[in-house]
Parts: sequence; C-alpha cells; structure tokens
Amino acid sequence: MVAVKDADFSKVDAVFCCLPHGTTQEIIASLPSSLKVVDLSADFRLRDVKEYEEWYNRPHGAVGLQKEAIYGLTELHREAVATARLVANPGCYPTSVQLPLVPLLEAKLISTEGIIIDAKSGVSGAGRSAKESNLYTEISEGMNAYGIAKHRHVPEIEQELSAASSCAVKVSFTPHLIPMSRGMQSTIYVQILQGVSVDDLHEHLSKRFQDEEFVIVLPKGVIPHTRNVRGSNYCHLNVFEDRITGRAIIISVIDNLVKGASGQAVQNMNLMMNYDESTGLLQQPMFP
Amino acid sequence: MVAVKDADFSKVDAVFCCLPHGTTQEIIASLPSSLKVVDLSADFRLRDVKEYEEWYNRPHGAVGLQKEAIYGLTELHREAVATARLVANPGCYPTSVQLPLVPLLEAKLISTEGIIIDAKSGVSGAGRSAKESNLYTEISEGMNAYGIAKHRHVPEIEQELSAASSCAVKVSFTPHLIPMSRGMQSTIYVQILQGVSVDDLHEHLSKRFQDEEFVIVLPKGVIPHTRNVRGSNYCHLNVFEDRITGRAIIISVIDNLVKGASGQAVQNMNLMMNYDESTGLLQQPMFP
Amino acid sequence: MVAVKDADFSKVDAVFCCLPHGTTQEIIASLPSSLKVVDLSADFRLRDVKEYEEWYNRPHGAVGLQKEAIYGLTELHREAVATARLVANPGCYPTSVQLPLVPLLEAKLISTEGIIIDAKSGVSGAGRSAKESNLYTEISEGMNAYGIAKHRHVPEIEQELSAASSCAVKVSFTPHLIPMSRGMQSTIYVQILQGVSVDDLHEHLSKRFQDEEFVIVLPKGVIPHTRNVRGSNYCHLNVFEDRITGRAIIISVIDNLVKGASGQAVQNMNLMMNYDESTGLLQQPMFP
Amino acid sequence: MVAVKDADFSKVDAVFCCLPHGTTQEIIASLPSSLKVVDLSADFRLRDVKEYEEWYNRPHGAVGLQKEAIYGLTELHREAVATARLVANPGCYPTSVQLPLVPLLEAKLISTEGIIIDAKSGVSGAGRSAKESNLYTEISEGMNAYGIAKHRHVPEIEQELSAASSCAVKVSFTPHLIPMSRGMQSTIYVQILQGVSVDDLHEHLSKRFQDEEFVIVLPKGVIPHTRNVRGSNYCHLNVFEDRITGRAIIISVIDNLVKGASGQAVQNMNLMMNYDESTGLLQQPMFP
Repeated sequence: MVAVKDADFSKVDAVFCCLPHGTTQEIIASLPSSLKVVDLSADFRLRDVKEYEEWYNRPHGAVGLQKEAIYGLTELHREAVATARLVANPGCYPTSVQLPLVPLLEAKLISTEGIIIDAKSGVSGAGRSAKESNLYTEISEGMNAYGIAKHRHVPEIEQELSAASSCAVKVSFTPHLIPMSRGMQSTIYVQILQGVSVDDLHEHLSKRFQDEEFVIVLPKGVIPHTRNVRGSNYCHLNVFEDRITGRAIIISVIDNLVKGASGQAVQNMNLMMNYDESTGLLQQPMFP
Repeated sequence: MVAVKDADFSKVDAVFCCLPHGTTQEIIASLPSSLKVVDLSADFRLRDVKEYEEWYNRPHGAVGLQKEAIYGLTELHREAVATARLVANPGCYPTSVQLPLVPLLEAKLISTEGIIIDAKSGVSGAGRSAKESNLYTEISEGMNAYGIAKHRHVPEIEQELSAASSCAVKVSFTPHLIPMSRGMQSTIYVQILQGVSVDDLHEHLSKRFQDEEFVIVLPKGVIPHTRNVRGSNYCHLNVFEDRITGRAIIISVIDNLVKGASGQAVQNMNLMMNYDESTGLLQQPMFP
Repeated sequence: MVAVKDADFSKVDAVFCCLPHGTTQEIIASLPSSLKVVDLSADFRLRDVKEYEEWYNRPHGAVGLQKEAIYGLTELHREAVATARLVANPGCYPTSVQLPLVPLLEAKLISTEGIIIDAKSGVSGAGRSAKESNLYTEISEGMNAYGIAKHRHVPEIEQELSAASSCAVKVSFTPHLIPMSRGMQSTIYVQILQGVSVDDLHEHLSKRFQDEEFVIVLPKGVIPHTRNVRGSNYCHLNVFEDRITGRAIIISVIDNLVKGASGQAVQNMNLMMNYDESTGLLQQPMFP
Repeated sequence: MVAVKDADFSKVDAVFCCLPHGTTQEIIASLPSSLKVVDLSADFRLRDVKEYEEWYNRPHGAVGLQKEAIYGLTELHREAVATARLVANPGCYPTSVQLPLVPLLEAKLISTEGIIIDAKSGVSGAGRSAKESNLYTEISEGMNAYGIAKHRHVPEIEQELSAASSCAVKVSFTPHLIPMSRGMQSTIYVQILQGVSVDDLHEHLSKRFQDEEFVIVLPKGVIPHTRNVRGSNYCHLNVFEDRITGRAIIISVIDNLVKGASGQAVQNMNLMMNYDESTGLLQQPMFP
C-alpha cells in the first residue's frame, strides 16, 4: 500500500478507508477535503464524541470532521448519503437491526421499551487476525455468546433507534458466535403498541421497502435463512406473532461481509458518485 | 429388535423406551406393570391429556398411565423419580430452560411475565431421518429459526414453569438450527423482581446446585460455551446483568443428546434402580 | 416443468438437459433434431455402448445418437464442441483429472502406466437427494473413501486418457467424501518418462493453457486450494517433484458444481451458440 | 507449570513430556535417570542423529540419550516399550501408516518400491497456535495439500519401513488438510508381490492384529471412516483390490489426537509401568 502521506490524490474522486478502528480519524483528517470518503471503521459512527471516547476508550482524533460525517445505512439515509463528503459505514449488527426497527419506531408501531436483540454472527465478523479464539478447532461444532451487554455496536444501535423515535432508547443486545464463516441473524423481540397488529407491522415494512433492490420483506410466515443471502448485498426480513399477546418477533438476516460491510460501502459510494446504486452489487447469493 | 409383544420380560427389571413420539403410549400400556420404564418420547410429558391431544394432534393412547408418569428432570424431581414406575424423560430444550428458571421462579426472584427464550440447537436435535432439510449442504455455513411460537416443547416448558411459580406462565420461545451436530444453548431474558439483584440470582443458583454432579453454575462473568459440555451429561449455567435496569440474561448449555436425552434417561434409571446416580455418565466433554 | 412431449420447441435454439442419469437418452432422442443440446447426465459420455451398459447396468436407449455426441471438456475439445449438435457434459472428477493428464499424455511426457488418482470431493457431488449418508450429522467432522476401484467415472477417465495416448490406459481411482459442500481436488501420482523433468511438465502445461480463461497453471511451488476456486468456473493446476526419483505429483482443483458441472455446460453452450465463451461465467471465487 | 529445574521428582515414577519439538532433548537429559519418560515431541524419533539435524535444522541436544530411546509404536514394539526408560512417541501420520505396512513388509507380501501414501488430517494436527492459516474462515469448506514431498514425518516413516523390510525404503508422502478438527486417514497404494493376493494381505493383517485391543482389521469390503474412531484410541484398517492388476489400496484411520498422540503415549506408559495396557483408554468413539 502506498503510504497515505505520499499518495497523489489529484486524480482520485473518492476513497474507501478500510483500516482498523481507531486509525482512520487522523488519516481522513489529513486527506484533501475535496475527496469523498467512505470509512468502514467505527471511527465516525457515533455523533457524540464523549460516547465515542467512553466506548472506544481513546480520545477522538478528528472532532471537527465528526459533525460532517453521515451515518451511511443506505436505505434509511439515502438523501444525506448522496450529498455527503464523508460517510461512516455502519456496523454489521446495527445494519441488520435498524433496517426493520427504524421504520417501525418512526411510525410509532412498536414500543421503545424492552427491545431485546438476540444476534448471531459468523466468524468473519471477528476479522482475520490470528487469535486462538478464532481457530477452526475452537469454533467448529460449538457456539457461545460474547460481549454480553457491552458490545461496541450497542451505542451505535441506540443512537439510531433514539433518533428514529425521538426519545432515549436502551436495548438489550446479546451477540453470539456461530460456527459459519459468513452470515448474520438478528432475532428481535418487541412489544407492539396498543391497537397495532403483527399484520400491520408486516404491511408497514413491506410498503417501506417495496422499491428497494436489496431489502426484501418475505411473504407472511416465511422464515429468513442466512444461507439465502450468503455472498450477496441482500437483507431478508420478516415479522412473526409471538405466543405472548402484544409481542412480535422480527428476524433479519444479512451477509455480514457484504450488506454488513463492504457491499453497503460500495452502495454508498455509488450514491455519492451518482452511479447506479446497484453497480457491482448484483452478485447473487451462493447456495450451497 | 425383538417385537415387544413376543418379548420375555420375566428377567428384566427396567427398560428404556426409545421409540418415536406417538408410539410409546400403547407399547408401555402393554408391558407388565412390574417393569420400570423410562420413556424418551414426548408421549407422557404433558400431564393435561387435552393439551397433549392439541399439540400432538392425536388422541392419547394411555390416559390411565398418564397420571402415574413422573416428569424426569432429575435435579428438580429427584425424589419422585427415585420411586417412580414410569418416567417421562424431558425434552432437550425444556431441560436447558428449566434448570435455571425453576429454582428462580420457586424462590420468587424473577417475574413470571415476559420470559423470552431464544434457543439454539445442533442438528442432531432433528433426529437421523433422511430429510432434505437436514442434508450437509443445506445446514453447513448457515442458520435459521424454525417453529416460531409453535414448537412442541412450549407446553412442556410452560407446564413446569407454571408448577414452579403456582401461576399460569406463558413464554416466548424461538428455537434456531445451528450448523453443528451436537450442542444446545438457551439464552433467556428475564425481569428481576423488585429488590433482587443479578448477584442474588447467581448466588441462589449456585447454592441450589452446589451438590449436583452434573449442573455447574459458572463463576460470575464466565460465559458458557456448548463445546465445554460436548459429549457429556453436564449443564453449564450463568446469569448476566443486562443494560436495561431490572433485567437479567441467563445462559444455559447442554449436549442435547446427553443431558438433553439419553444421558438424563440413564441418570433417571440409575435413581430408579438405586444405582449410583452417575453410573455410566462420567464421560468427559470432548474438545476439540 | 412443462412435460417434454407437450413442449413447443419452435422458438428454442438450444436446451440444457439436467435430468438424472439413465433418463436423458430417450428424452433427447425425442427432441427435434434441429435443437442443440448439452446433456449434464452421464448418458452420452461413453462412446462404447457396451461399456455404458456394463457400468450403468441398463440398455442404452439411444444408440444412434451416441455416435453424434461430442464429449464436452471444453478446453480439450473446443472445435468439436463449437459445431456439435449434442454435447455430453463431462463428469466432475473426469474434468479435474483430464485437464492436466491429457496434454501430458498427448505430448508423451508421462507414462501411461501406474497412474494413481486420489480424488476428494465435497458433498454436493452426491446431489441433493435425502439420503441418511448425506445428513449433516453423518458428514460433518469426518471423512471416508467410497466406490473404491468401481466409481462410474473410471470408464470415462480411461476412455479419454486412452484416446490421448493412443493406447489402453488403466488408472487407479479412489474418491473420498470430504466435509465441505463444494470443491474437488485430484491428487495424481505419475511416472515421468525418461529424460523428462518436472519442470518440463510445468512448462508444457503452462504453455498449453496460457490463453485459457478458466484453466490456471499456478507458479512453481504454489499449492492449489479448493477455496480459491469456490463458486467459480476456474481450474487451478500445479505439478510437484516427488521424493521418489522419476515421479511427479499433480494437483488439480475445481468447484465440482461449476467447472465440474453447470459452469462447463454454460461454457459449452456459449461455444455452440457462438456467444463469448465466458458469458455468464465471470463470477469470482468466494472467500471465505 | 513448575519449572523443570526446580521440580522434586523424588516421588515420581514417570513423566510425560508434552513440550514443543526441539525443546525436550535438553530437558529430558536433565531429569534423574531413574525416571521413566514418554516424549511426545519428535526429538527422539529418528535414530540417525544426522538425519535428525538435516530435517529439523538444528543440532541434536542429547546424542547420548538417543541410543536409549525406544520408538513407541505400541503394537509393533511392545516388548521393547515395556522395558524402556525413554520412549519416543510416534507421530500421527507414521502411526497410521506403519500399522498396516510394517507387518506386510516384514512378511514380504508387498513391494518396497513405489509405495504411495496420500494422507489426510484434521486441523488439530497443526496444533493450537494462533496462525492465520488455521483460522475457521481459512479452513472451513475447503481443503489443500501441504508439505508435499518434504513433511517431517517422511524420515520417521522411511526409517521404520526400512527396518521392517531390511532395505532402504523411500515413499511418496502427500499430506492434506481437511476441514475437520480430529481424524486422520492414510490411503496407501502398494504393489503386491508375485503370487500374493489381496485376500492374503487381508488375512495376514487380520491374524497379526487379532489379539489387539486397539487395532481393528475390518471385514472384507468395509470401508474405514474417520468418524468411527473419533475420540478413541482405535485404528481401523482395511485392504482393497485395485483396478490395476497387482496393486492394492490400504486404508487406515485413527484419531490423530488419541492413537496418533496422547492415547498412544498413555498406552506406552501403561506398558512401562506394568499397568493394564488399556487403562484410561476405553473411551468409545463419539458419533455424531
């Protein structure tokens, strides 16, 4: 890689920044301000600098830039992304969670209280660094929860759900490590507001995403499977009636490496550069 | 296999009945009443015959015997099992759920309302029959929920939690199929009652199971992993503080084929026959 | 599927025939002779009708058509495929084996005697039918040989190697089932002819395939991995020096479902229809 | 771990030495000579010190002790092990290869020339160190050969096959990494000597191992599966007729962590200490 400081950006319109969390604030601050940037790290996702410093345990390195950063969950912030200079590409868990919850909270169909997110991820979510805990022999044929109640995607989720509902939302979020390379599922337990039915939730989400290329609300009763989005930029969603009256179960699946990371980054860049939004993203899911 | 009708039971003290759900009521009814029986099917688990007929969609074939059947979750019903003639061996999900919840409900430490169980199982839970949905190519590298809000283990769980709390408990129960052969985890979200702390829950469970061979409450903060009980009769448990005040997250892992099935059946038989309870069950977990 | 007998083929130029072995001879014989056909079954792969009947244990149902069938290993028979009316698409193992061996035998660089093929395949090679032997719980975390010395791909391999070397070649062929959905490797042990070196083999294969889109001879010393061709139409090849003087080890990897089946069928159809040969086949390998 | 230099061995009869290759020569040399030792590293496996230094690329640190070391493939060297002071526990591949080949070479039933060993191993064979190449995402759903013609188990195999046949044997040995945690298979291609049949090989091996607890020659035609020895100290063997006249295919499976490592070490220690040879080793294979 060419060192950033020596790079000639004079003929470059836009860059992806795929560097580790905690390193991109300084780097992006040093780039020409004419350059459009999609940052795949967590460095610009949290609008509140104090919250950033608390969860990431380090000072923020580009406080001035933070205000400019647009949170790039494409389907929820398309207009802002299209004109953005700097996009903070969302985390994988937050993408899978916000796609169903933000529209339901905005429409005041579900309660802001008692939202429980039981999330499951393939191992590539942990990156490619050589740690004992990610060895084949540790992962294969077993599973476990991790980061219970303190995963760094929590403040990102709460920031966006709070914005959608105009009140401070706190969620229960428990991620699990599943023996598969790719794939992510969020199983979300919510309380429906008085007078609202599960069918209403399904109808609302269906309408909200009816013109979207990459977010598919499945027909009633059809259960999303991670294998049906593997290797693709799709999110599959559905809503189910719970046994406990007044509760619903929402299931959302994505490929954590595509819609949950690089695919959504490309989607954002397409918007920022005024390309067709699906350019380079029409690779179909691979099964088996 | 010797046909049951032709078998000579004169020199037999006890039998395991490992036949499909829906076939053991008639068979066990035809056995000599002196014979001790552990039934691994679901045929005698539900005390309410009507509920059985509703969930299993068939008439009960041995209503008289049903009253005699003892629900065999060993650690919770040891005395009754020891003197039982007929034991209904519990389902795998119900075993993993009841071990932490029954003591907490009995002690009135958690609410009977809003209990949410997000359960995950390896593929052997679906048995060995040749179905497309259980092929390697369908299961590997993907996951999905199934039987949402209508899995047949729900009435079994609700029956026992209701008995423990002396009121009608309804639970949210969502099982998931995980790409592994063995292993089961229940992630359980509960509301703590006023004045009770997560430490209180941990202490209560630790005391309740301190003399048990097979139920291990892990030290505070240690996350149970299914791989640590693989191939063994152990259940590993722990309780965690949630972000939302007043809520706790309970994690319980077992090997669905051992403590969740045949291991617990052997444990019950050992009790019924007055053998040492751990006879034949000391195989250690296999890792990797 | 529209029944073949009722189908209107008047506006169709070509068809893929993806039906089970033993059913396509009659069907293809009943099609209009103007229609171009790529048959993915084994029905037309063996030129010798008697050999077909012996290995497949049934009479040949379209002896007349057999003469017309072109064996469609694209890189080895491109001209014949381009003008063919009926193409017999090769088996997966034979594809991985012939790509390196046919050029070396044609150039008389290796011995026709003592060729040993130790082959490994992912489970999708066994199809999607619901058999106990293909269940996740049977396959995961274990492996085994099968069809030792009597796999039906043997006569197909020997037919083509014999044609390439103008003498009757017999091979040792042992396939193994590996716990993975896709991917195939043939590890091939050969004797080099007098005066020939392993470098000569590498150079010959490199030249032979230098203009090919889908067959890549790796640089000296680089070991092919099935994961590097997963989901793609590529074949990766290399040749290695053995410890025993005068012997070489050839490794060839493909995705059994793409270059080993449907991908090669598309490649053949592209040629027959005068489309660009790589149309629809440029999907890149998926990793992880 | 207590540092070796400070340890009090006065009440110890025997030790296992489970330290990395290249570290045990010095350590064992420093132990009291009354202590019985089973060394699981490769440090004492090669009788020829020069060969050790060439393959392991370091000077031998205990040349004097080397002469004393007994190569501990239990079934083949039981008497020497029983009276040994220092046992060099064999490698996993060499164990799977020698169990069938040594008796056949000793009985002069197969040729010493052209022995081809295509070996497959689960990932635990690579140990538990945190290397990128052993991550779940690198290993799952793919396979590859490695160490072609230069794996360090080659000199160990050749040393023992040469001793068994009283002539210098060279083998072709190609190991492969398979996506499974445990399990090892050697598929071995041999030439049968004139006048000998495959049935003779099967009969000879069956007789040779008929009284062995842990080496099972399967009935004719039954293919060994690694899953049938998983977690156990068993080796399953069989011999098959090849298509090429005069050749046979031998398949040998073990669990690389048990019979291929610690299980065989315990078996050797049992012999050295005059315990029952199967003490601690009767854990049955785990399936699934």
